[in-house]
Amino acid sequence: MLTLEEYQDRVKLEIDRQVFDYQPTELYEPIDYTLKLGGKRLRPTLTLLACDIFGGDINDAVNAALGLETFHNFTLLHDDIMDKAPIRRGKPTVYKKWDANRAILSGDTMMVLAYDYLLNSPKDLLYDLFKVFNKVGKEVCEGQQFDMNFETASCVSIEDYLNMIKLKTAVLIGGSLRVGAVIARASIEQASMLYDYGENIGMAFQLQDDLLDAFGKTSIFGKETGGDIRTNKKTYLYLKALEVSNNQDRERLKKLYSIQDEDRQEKVEEVLSLFKKYNIDQLTRDLMEEYYHKAIFYLKQINLESSKENVLISLADTLMKRNS
Amino acid sequence: MLTLEEYQDRVKLEIDRQVFDYQPTELYEPIDYTLKLGGKRLRPTLTLLACDIFGGDINDAVNAALGLETFHNFTLLHDDIMDKAPIRRGKPTVYKKWDANRAILSGDTMMVLAYDYLLNSPKDLLYDLFKVFNKVGKEVCEGQQFDMNFETASCVSIEDYLNMIKLKTAVLIGGSLRVGAVIARASIEQASMLYDYGENIGMAFQLQDDLLDAFGKTSIFGKETGGDIRTNKKTYLYLKALEVSNNQDRERLKKLYSIQDEDRQEKVEEVLSLFKKYNIDQLTRDLMEEYYHKAIFYLKQINLESSKENVLISLADTLMKRNS
Repeated sequence: MLTLEEYQDRVKLEIDRQVFDYQPTELYEPIDYTLKLGGKRLRPTLTLLACDIFGGDINDAVNAALGLETFHNFTLLHDDIMDKAPIRRGKPTVYKKWDANRAILSGDTMMVLAYDYLLNSPKDLLYDLFKVFNKVGKEVCEGQQFDMNFETASCVSIEDYLNMIKLKTAVLIGGSLRVGAVIARASIEQASMLYDYGENIGMAFQLQDDLLDAFGKTSIFGKETGGDIRTNKKTYLYLKALEVSNNQDRERLKKLYSIQDEDRQEKVEEVLSLFKKYNIDQLTRDLMEEYYHKAIFYLKQINLESSKENVLISLADTLMKRNS
Repeated sequence: MLTLEEYQDRVKLEIDRQVFDYQPTELYEPIDYTLKLGGKRLRPTLTLLACDIFGGDINDAVNAALGLETFHNFTLLHDDIMDKAPIRRGKPTVYKKWDANRAILSGDTMMVLAYDYLLNSPKDLLYDLFKVFNKVGKEVCEGQQFDMNFETASCVSIEDYLNMIKLKTAVLIGGSLRVGAVIARASIEQASMLYDYGENIGMAFQLQDDLLDAFGKTSIFGKETGGDIRTNKKTYLYLKALEVSNNQDRERLKKLYSIQDEDRQEKVEEVLSLFKKYNIDQLTRDLMEEYYHKAIFYLKQINLESSKENVLISLADTLMKRNS
């Protein structure tokens, strides 16, 4: 077993080796830019880790790992157009740096590239791998559509929100682990339980993202904080605040979330002070803890030797405490 | 062997059987709308035909055929956003009927669905099928990017243009045939020659599209004619006209193609009269004939029994003469 940083380094090495100097450059330049921007590269790291956990050869998993990172980045390119997001990983998004058409088409190409990477996995596993990949791919699109629907929906329940982040984020975290397990020829049961572990840490991961967007530091987080509040995004923080606040504060929050002006810094501050008043930070961490414990529950079912189990526990711990 | 219409009917039957009533409806409604709009369904028809030609079971090719049609429609959804096209197959485009975000995301989902259909092909052929599919997929994106580049390029050569339509259109026609051949377990050489036949009829097919856009009837063509002229699209017709016209007409054409107002009917008429003066219609048909003969050359190399060869000759003839 390697350390998490070592899997991550291997992913970085493999990504840096990829060459995208094909024609037309207008198409491949944004792909090179995006994939080499850095970021946590969590998903491919998970694929290598999962493969290693089940005794597979991580060299067999490198292409699938690249495929998952490329797929994830394709979704970011398109999401950034839909969300009009100017900054990603501290740099201009493709849609801002070039234009929406380039972001659409480079994204489309990345999706094909993702499948092409995956195709270089062991041939007898292709059906199983594509099955996992396609299911996750569809769910990620469904999650993004729910997310867009919620922008204009007058009423979003906490359950709706959690289902949305499961589809948009958690299934790909789970899927990245499952792909690694499949390549290591783990049993279906083992791969499923690892997936469930991953889906639950994925839920905690996204809730942490929502927390960081409200309470994080822009310089560390890599994108401007307060963005969700500015754009009236109905995150868990907001929905929980509606649930636990008194009538007056609830109406005030709703009113604040009807302001369309994204530059109102005093709105961000008032919302944050309401979140603090109701301890939303801690309530969100409580829910994250629930997902964390579910993740560990599934992990224990796999019955791994303790050194391997500990790597996955420490991964979950790291993700719970991240600040970027 | 069935007739072309019978393959087409089978494709229609299979598409009509597809159910897209999943959640969120905002995502799946445009997919259902697009796939059931009709159209020629040329690509899946070619897949079934090619499979049958080489003695395969067309039931094995149905899923791949659906995959190719779904992939093709995904590209249309995204192209229509980039080209700001309001009408497709006589109906509003997805981007016009709903909005660009829906068209982006439904398109993305269709791409995953395309791969998911393809995955239901015979398992031992998956590697070969995905290899064909991914190559074509990348090339189609490259073609669309070249097409967008040409919008702002001051000088586009005829060679550049022909390379662009090869990537954007012809490779998918060829690829649809190759997929059918692979499923029928044709030899690599046979599949390649059928691909070359297809690529060449694909070139003629696109040139015919350019001709119909200029000289066709809106009511039959399914989209407004003159659109390429209105949007200053540097098609073969325009580039050939620049090549063969005298200095005065060449400068006039360039001037007309610098007008940004898409509603100028008199511009369309003046361009058409210049095209007629230089016999551009016939010159385009001459080039189509060249591609036709190349296609037939490759077809003959396959050495099929004459009844099968005749089906493919008659297909090429039909496509040469189409008016919609």
